[in-house]
Amino acid sequence: MKKLVLAYSGGLDTSYCAKYLSREKGYEVHAVSVNTGGFTPEEQKDIEGKALKLGVATYSNIDAVNSFYDKVVRHLIYGNVLKNNTYPLSVSAERIVQAIEIINYAKKIGAKYIAHGSTGAGNDQVRFDMIFQILAPEIEIITPIRDEQLSRQQEIEYLKKNGVDMSWEKAKYSINKGLWGTSVGGDETLTSHLSLPEEAWPSQLENDGSQKIKLTFKEGELIAINDKEDSPVSNIQLLNDIASKYAIGRDIHIGDTIIGIKGRVGFEAAAPLIIIKAHHTLEKHVLTKWQQHHKEYLANWYGMLLHEGQYLDEVMRNIEAFLSDTQKNVTGHVFVTLHPYRFVVDGIQSPHDLMNASFGSYGEMNKGWTADDAKGFIKINSNQNKIYYHVNKMS
Amino acid sequence: MKKLVLAYSGGLDTSYCAKYLSREKGYEVHAVSVNTGGFTPEEQKDIEGKALKLGVATYSNIDAVNSFYDKVVRHLIYGNVLKNNTYPLSVSAERIVQAIEIINYAKKIGAKYIAHGSTGAGNDQVRFDMIFQILAPEIEIITPIRDEQLSRQQEIEYLKKNGVDMSWEKAKYSINKGLWGTSVGGDETLTSHLSLPEEAWPSQLENDGSQKIKLTFKEGELIAINDKEDSPVSNIQLLNDIASKYAIGRDIHIGDTIIGIKGRVGFEAAAPLIIIKAHHTLEKHVLTKWQQHHKEYLANWYGMLLHEGQYLDEVMRNIEAFLSDTQKNVTGHVFVTLHPYRFVVDGIQSPHDLMNASFGSYGEMNKGWTADDAKGFIKINSNQNKIYYHVNKMS
Amino acid sequence: MKKLVLAYSGGLDTSYCAKYLSREKGYEVHAVSVNTGGFTPEEQKDIEGKALKLGVATYSNIDAVNSFYDKVVRHLIYGNVLKNNTYPLSVSAERIVQAIEIINYAKKIGAKYIAHGSTGAGNDQVRFDMIFQILAPEIEIITPIRDEQLSRQQEIEYLKKNGVDMSWEKAKYSINKGLWGTSVGGDETLTSHLSLPEEAWPSQLENDGSQKIKLTFKEGELIAINDKEDSPVSNIQLLNDIASKYAIGRDIHIGDTIIGIKGRVGFEAAAPLIIIKAHHTLEKHVLTKWQQHHKEYLANWYGMLLHEGQYLDEVMRNIEAFLSDTQKNVTGHVFVTLHPYRFVVDGIQSPHDLMNASFGSYGEMNKGWTADDAKGFIKINSNQNKIYYHVNKMS
Amino acid sequence: MKKLVLAYSGGLDTSYCAKYLSREKGYEVHAVSVNTGGFTPEEQKDIEGKALKLGVATYSNIDAVNSFYDKVVRHLIYGNVLKNNTYPLSVSAERIVQAIEIINYAKKIGAKYIAHGSTGAGNDQVRFDMIFQILAPEIEIITPIRDEQLSRQQEIEYLKKNGVDMSWEKAKYSINKGLWGTSVGGDETLTSHLSLPEEAWPSQLENDGSQKIKLTFKEGELIAINDKEDSPVSNIQLLNDIASKYAIGRDIHIGDTIIGIKGRVGFEAAAPLIIIKAHHTLEKHVLTKWQQHHKEYLANWYGMLLHEGQYLDEVMRNIEAFLSDTQKNVTGHVFVTLHPYRFVVDGIQSPHDLMNASFGSYGEMNKGWTADDAKGFIKINSNQNKIYYHVNKMS
Repeated sequence: MKKLVLAYSGGLDTSYCAKYLSREKGYEVHAVSVNTGGFTPEEQKDIEGKALKLGVATYSNIDAVNSFYDKVVRHLIYGNVLKNNTYPLSVSAERIVQAIEIINYAKKIGAKYIAHGSTGAGNDQVRFDMIFQILAPEIEIITPIRDEQLSRQQEIEYLKKNGVDMSWEKAKYSINKGLWGTSVGGDETLTSHLSLPEEAWPSQLENDGSQKIKLTFKEGELIAINDKEDSPVSNIQLLNDIASKYAIGRDIHIGDTIIGIKGRVGFEAAAPLIIIKAHHTLEKHVLTKWQQHHKEYLANWYGMLLHEGQYLDEVMRNIEAFLSDTQKNVTGHVFVTLHPYRFVVDGIQSPHDLMNASFGSYGEMNKGWTADDAKGFIKINSNQNKIYYHVNKMS
Repeated sequence: MKKLVLAYSGGLDTSYCAKYLSREKGYEVHAVSVNTGGFTPEEQKDIEGKALKLGVATYSNIDAVNSFYDKVVRHLIYGNVLKNNTYPLSVSAERIVQAIEIINYAKKIGAKYIAHGSTGAGNDQVRFDMIFQILAPEIEIITPIRDEQLSRQQEIEYLKKNGVDMSWEKAKYSINKGLWGTSVGGDETLTSHLSLPEEAWPSQLENDGSQKIKLTFKEGELIAINDKEDSPVSNIQLLNDIASKYAIGRDIHIGDTIIGIKGRVGFEAAAPLIIIKAHHTLEKHVLTKWQQHHKEYLANWYGMLLHEGQYLDEVMRNIEAFLSDTQKNVTGHVFVTLHPYRFVVDGIQSPHDLMNASFGSYGEMNKGWTADDAKGFIKINSNQNKIYYHVNKMS
Repeated sequence: MKKLVLAYSGGLDTSYCAKYLSREKGYEVHAVSVNTGGFTPEEQKDIEGKALKLGVATYSNIDAVNSFYDKVVRHLIYGNVLKNNTYPLSVSAERIVQAIEIINYAKKIGAKYIAHGSTGAGNDQVRFDMIFQILAPEIEIITPIRDEQLSRQQEIEYLKKNGVDMSWEKAKYSINKGLWGTSVGGDETLTSHLSLPEEAWPSQLENDGSQKIKLTFKEGELIAINDKEDSPVSNIQLLNDIASKYAIGRDIHIGDTIIGIKGRVGFEAAAPLIIIKAHHTLEKHVLTKWQQHHKEYLANWYGMLLHEGQYLDEVMRNIEAFLSDTQKNVTGHVFVTLHPYRFVVDGIQSPHDLMNASFGSYGEMNKGWTADDAKGFIKINSNQNKIYYHVNKMS
Repeated sequence: MKKLVLAYSGGLDTSYCAKYLSREKGYEVHAVSVNTGGFTPEEQKDIEGKALKLGVATYSNIDAVNSFYDKVVRHLIYGNVLKNNTYPLSVSAERIVQAIEIINYAKKIGAKYIAHGSTGAGNDQVRFDMIFQILAPEIEIITPIRDEQLSRQQEIEYLKKNGVDMSWEKAKYSINKGLWGTSVGGDETLTSHLSLPEEAWPSQLENDGSQKIKLTFKEGELIAINDKEDSPVSNIQLLNDIASKYAIGRDIHIGDTIIGIKGRVGFEAAAPLIIIKAHHTLEKHVLTKWQQHHKEYLANWYGMLLHEGQYLDEVMRNIEAFLSDTQKNVTGHVFVTLHPYRFVVDGIQSPHDLMNASFGSYGEMNKGWTADDAKGFIKINSNQNKIYYHVNKMS
C-alpha cells in the first residue's frame, strides 16, 4: 500500500485530507503533528483523538520545541531579527522546523508520499514544498487543498458523508501559536485600514500594575529570569507567561509574501519582543560599532531568507557562524519593567560593557585624550571633504 | 578688531566664552543662536538678554526650523531613520544645520574666527568643527571650553569677578530640545543600568484616555493631521503637542560616539517616533520588497554619517536623491491611536496600496495564478538548493 | 483574425514559430526584430528576407540602439557593472529592451498575442515573459519552442514539409552580438573545465603592436575618443572596432541563472571592459570613499536585478537616480594603452581630481596637518578597540 | 636604561632613528625587522649588518611569513579581496602582522618604548600606532621621522657627523616586497596621468611563450601546483616565481588613504591576482548565489577595515568565521594559462561543482522541470510588479 505522511493539525483542511487521501486515493495515511511550542497537552490529546477518529493508519506527535530553538530561534535572538523592524517571524520560523521533522519522519517510516494542507495563496506551501523537495526529491508531494480549492462547506459535507461528524465551526480569528509568538488573522487583517479588536488578541490584560524583571544572558542566550536559571526554552515560556498578563507584544505586520503579494497579519509576541529589545540593548553596550553594523545587515538577510523558505541555503549556515561568533561577550543582566501593553528596558550590567568610565565619559571631561588630540582627529577626519569642496569650488 | 562669531546658547559655557573671548582675548564677539525648533519666544528673549548683558558686540537669532526640516528632517522621515533601531537622531541632526547657519553668518559678516562651547569628549565638537573646516577652511576655530577644561565653579567665578552675576544653578537634567526631539542627560545616563526617573522627562502624562488621529502623507511628507492641512513643520509641532500629553516617545539610547566611546542618552520624541512608524507602515503597503530593502540599507547609512558629522560628504546628496525618488507613491492616510505612554498604528489607506484584492488575498483563494503555477514556482525556486544537496550528498 | 507579434531573429527556432503559428494555429503573424546593436544592415536585410519567405503578415525591424543605451547601458557604465566582477551583462541587458520594444509594438498594432522562441531552460524566457506580463497582462504569451521541446531536426522537417527550404546548418558556436558585447556558447561552455578555442572568438588578433587612446568622459558618459566628440553610442561602437583588432575583452563567465542552475558562457566585450575600467579609474580619483562604496553596493544590485529580468521593479528607477546623481563630477580624460589581448589604463586627468597636491601628497611631507594632528587622529581612532581590549582583558 | 624596540628596515629613515634615539635620546635601541616574505637571506644579512654598524643594543629578525599567511592572507583569498576591484592589499596586510610581531617582541623583552620610521602623511603610521596602542597602551610610541620632518640630506648629514658613512643613494622607485605582492612608487605615481615605465617594474618579461598550470584548492587553500602538494605559503611563492617571468600582475591603484587623501601606487602581484581569480572562479561553480553575494559584501569590508588598520576590531574575527565557513566545498582544480603580461582561467574541476548536467543544462533541454513549471515560476515571480503597475496605472 502507498505509505503517505500527512502533516496533521486537527483543523478542517487536514482532517479532510486525512479522510480523502485514505478513502478516495488509497493511501495508508500516517498523520503527524509537530509541536513547536503551540500545543498544550490537552490540545495534543484532542488532535490525536480526531486523527484516530478519521481512521488514519497511525498518528504521531513530534515534540520539536528544543529543535526549533536550536535550529532557528537561537539565531533569531542572536540577530535581533524583526522582519521590517516589526515582526519576529513567529510562524515562518516554525514551518521550517515542522517541515524538516516531517520529512525525517517520512524517511524513517519509508513513506513515498507526503501531504500537507496549505492553499496555493500563501507562504506555507512554499516553505513546506521547498524543504521537502530539497531534502527528499524522491518523495512525491500531495496537496489536495491547493489542488481542489474546495470551500469549507464542501469539505464538511464530504466528511459528514463519510461518517465523520465533528464540529467545525470556523473561529472568528485564526490563531497560530508557537514558542516564538502567536499570529492572528481575521476579517480586519484582510483590509489595510482596520486594526484587530481587543477580543481578537489571545492574551488579555490581567495585571494592571507594573513589575520589574531581570533577564540574564550568557553568550547571547537567555539563561535566567530573576536570577533563577533554567533552559532558554523554559525561560522563553516563563517570560511569555509573565508578560502576557500585561497584554504586551501586540502588533500588525504587513509584509511581502514569497509569492509577491502583500500579506497582513496580527501577532502577539510578548517574550520575543522583550527578549530581542533586551538582547539588543545588551549588545549595544558590549559590541563594537562595526560588529553591530554588520550583524544587522546579515541578520536582516537571515530573517528574509528564513521567511522565504530558504533555510537550507548554505549561506544560512555561514550567517549562523557569523552570528554565533559575535555572541561571545553578550553576557550580562538586562533590567526590564513591564507595564500594561508595553515594557521598558531600564538598563544593563555586564563585565563586557564598553561604556567604561576609566576612559572618559561621553560629554564629560576626557581622560584618554587631550583637546589637541580631538582637534587632530577632527582635522584629519575632515580631509577628504575639505579637499572635495576645495577642488570642486563649493562652499 | 578681530571679528569672531560665537555659537551662543545662553548656558554657562558659552556665556563664559562670550566674556572671556572679548575681555581676555580681544575678539569682537558676535553671538548667534540658531533655533532648530527648541526655543520658545520667551527663551529666545532670555538668551538675547543674557548675551547683551555679557557685553557682546551683537547678538542674532537665526530661525532655522524650515531649513532644518528641508535639509535633514525630511530625509530622516523618507528613510525612517532610527539609529540602531532606537534613536531618531534628534540632536545630531540639529547640530549640522546649526553649524551651517553659523558658518554662513560668519562669512556674511566677514568674521575670521568662530567659537563654540563644546568639550573635547563629545560628538558636537566633531560635527561643528568638521562643517566649519570644510565650508570655511580659512576661518579659525576657537574652543575655550575644550582647551581649558575649566570646572563650572571656575567659570562662574570668572564671570562674577568680571561683573556678570547671573544665576547658574545646574539643572539636575540637561535638556536639549528641537523640532525632532528632546534629549535628556543626567546622573542615570552616566551609568549603564539605571533608567531615568519619571520627573526627568520633559513631558508628563496629562491625558490618560485614548485618542484616534489621522495622519496624511503626500510623497512622503506629513501634509495633514485629522484632515487639516498645514506645512510639514507645523504638523510635526502640532503632533508633538498632542502626543506629548500622553507622555509618548520616551526611551534611552546607548550609542557609539564619533570618538569611539559609548554614550548613553535619554530622549523624548513623540512626533518623530509616531511619524516614522506611520510612514514606515504606509511604505510597507506601497513599496516593493526591494525598494524597502535598499531604502533601509541606505537610510541606515544616512543616519550613521549624519550622526558622525559627515553631512557634507557628497554621498549624502546621492542618498537623498535615492530616498526622494522612492517617495513618489508614499501618499495616503495612516490611522493611529494614542494611549498613555504608547501608540498603535491601526492601518492605512492609499491609492497606491499594493495589497490589492483583485490579485488574490494572502492565504485566501488565489485569483491571479493556479495551483500548478504555484507548484512550478516552488519547484524552480528550489532548484539551486536541490542541486546543492544532491551534489554534496547532504539530506 | 488573431493578431500575434513574434519576436523574430532569423534563426531556426523563430522561423519554425513563424510558420507553425500562422499555418497550424491560425494566427496573423507580425514578425519583429529589435536591433540592439548586433545586426549589420546586411544581416537585417537577410532576416527580413527570411521572414517574408516564411509568409508572415508583416515584418518590422525596430532600431533600439539608442533606447538600449539610454535605458540600460548608461547605468551599467555609471555603476561599473560587471556581474560577479566578470561579465558586463551583454545579453541580459539587451533582452530587457527588446521585450519592451516588442510589447510596445504589440500594443500599437493591437495584437492580443505575443510569441517568442525561448526554451524552458534559460534566462531569456523569464526576462521576456516577465516584462510582457507586467506591461501588458492582457496579452497572451505563446511559446512553441518551450512547450513542444522539438529537436532541430523536427523543426527543419516541419519547415521543409511546408515548403520552406532554407539552409539551417547549426553553427559550431552560437553567437549573440549587441552594442554591449557578444556572447559565445559552444560545446566547451557546457563543460566546467574547457576554455573556448581560438577560432570560437568572433574577433581575431589583427593588430599586434600597441596603441594609446584617450577617452573623454563627461558626467559619466563617453563623449569623445582621441578628442573627437561623438554620441556615446557611436563612441562605444568606434572603441569596439579599434579594440577588437587587438582581440581584447575575452573571458568566460559561470553564473547563477534565474532558474537556479549554473550557466557558463563565453563573451567578448572589448569596449565594455575598457570603458568600465577607464570610468572606474576616473571615479576613484573624483569620488569620495563613501560614494564609491555605496555605488558599488547598489550597482551590484542593479546588475543582479537586471540580469534576473527585474528591470521594471521600481527600485531600479531609484538606483538609477542614485547612480546618475553620483556622476556630476565624473568628467575628465582617461589614457589607455591597447596591447594584443589586453589593455592598460595609464592614468587620468580631471578638474575634479581629489589627488590634489596642495593638501599634501600621500607618504610625502604633509601640508594640511601636523604630526600632532596625525597622532591625535590615530589615538582617538583607536579608542573603541583600546577599550574593547582593556575591558575584555585581551592583549 | 630606557629599553626601546625599533622597527628597523635597513633604510635611511630607520637608520637615522637607530642612531638618533640611542645617541641623542639615551634609549637602549633593540632593532627588529619582521620578514613577511620580502627579504632574501642576503638582504636580511645586509640589514643586520647595517643595524650593528649603527650601534644598536641588539638586532633580531622575526620570520613572520607563516603568521602573515595564517592571520591575513588566507582570509584575503577566502574573500577574493581586491580593494576597489583592483589592489590585493599587498602592503596594508603586511603592516598589520609586522606591528603585532613587534609589539609582542617589545613585551617579551620588557621594553617601555617602541619606535617606527613612518611619516605623518601615510597609512603606515596609522596601522602601526593603532595596533601598538590597542595591544600595549602602556608602551610609548616614538616617531622621530614624523615629528621632525627632516629631509634625506639632513638625515644623511647627521649620520655622517656621527660616524656612519654608508651609501644612501635614493632608488628611483621605492619598492616594498612581500608574500602578497610588491608595491612600486615613483615620480609617476605622484601624478594622476602617468603610468610607470617598463623599467620600474621589479619583474621583467623573461618568458614569451605560454604555459598551462593546474592549481589545486582544498577548502579554499592552495594546496598543490601541477599536482605537486606543498604548504600554501610555498605554493604562493612558487606560483609567483613562475608567473613573474611572464611579467603578470602589474597595475596601478588609486585609493583612499586612512587620512582622507588619495594615494596612488603601482603594484606587481602575479601570484595574488592569479590565485584570487582562480579561487573566485572555483567558488562561482561551488557556492550558491547568496553565498557569493554575502561573501563579497563582507570581504569588501574585510579589505577596507584591514587597509585602514582596524584588524583588531572584533568584527574582523566574526567576518573570518563567516568566510572560513563558506570554504568547506571550495575544493577542486583550476586550470590556468599564463601568457606574457596576462593570464587566462580556462576552467575548473570539482566534486562540488553545481553545474550538474543531471539537472538540465543552461539553455538546453530541461530535465528537472517542465515548460509549465517554468511558466508558473515566471508568473508568480512577476506578481509584485504586475500589481505595482496595475495599481499605479503604469504600462
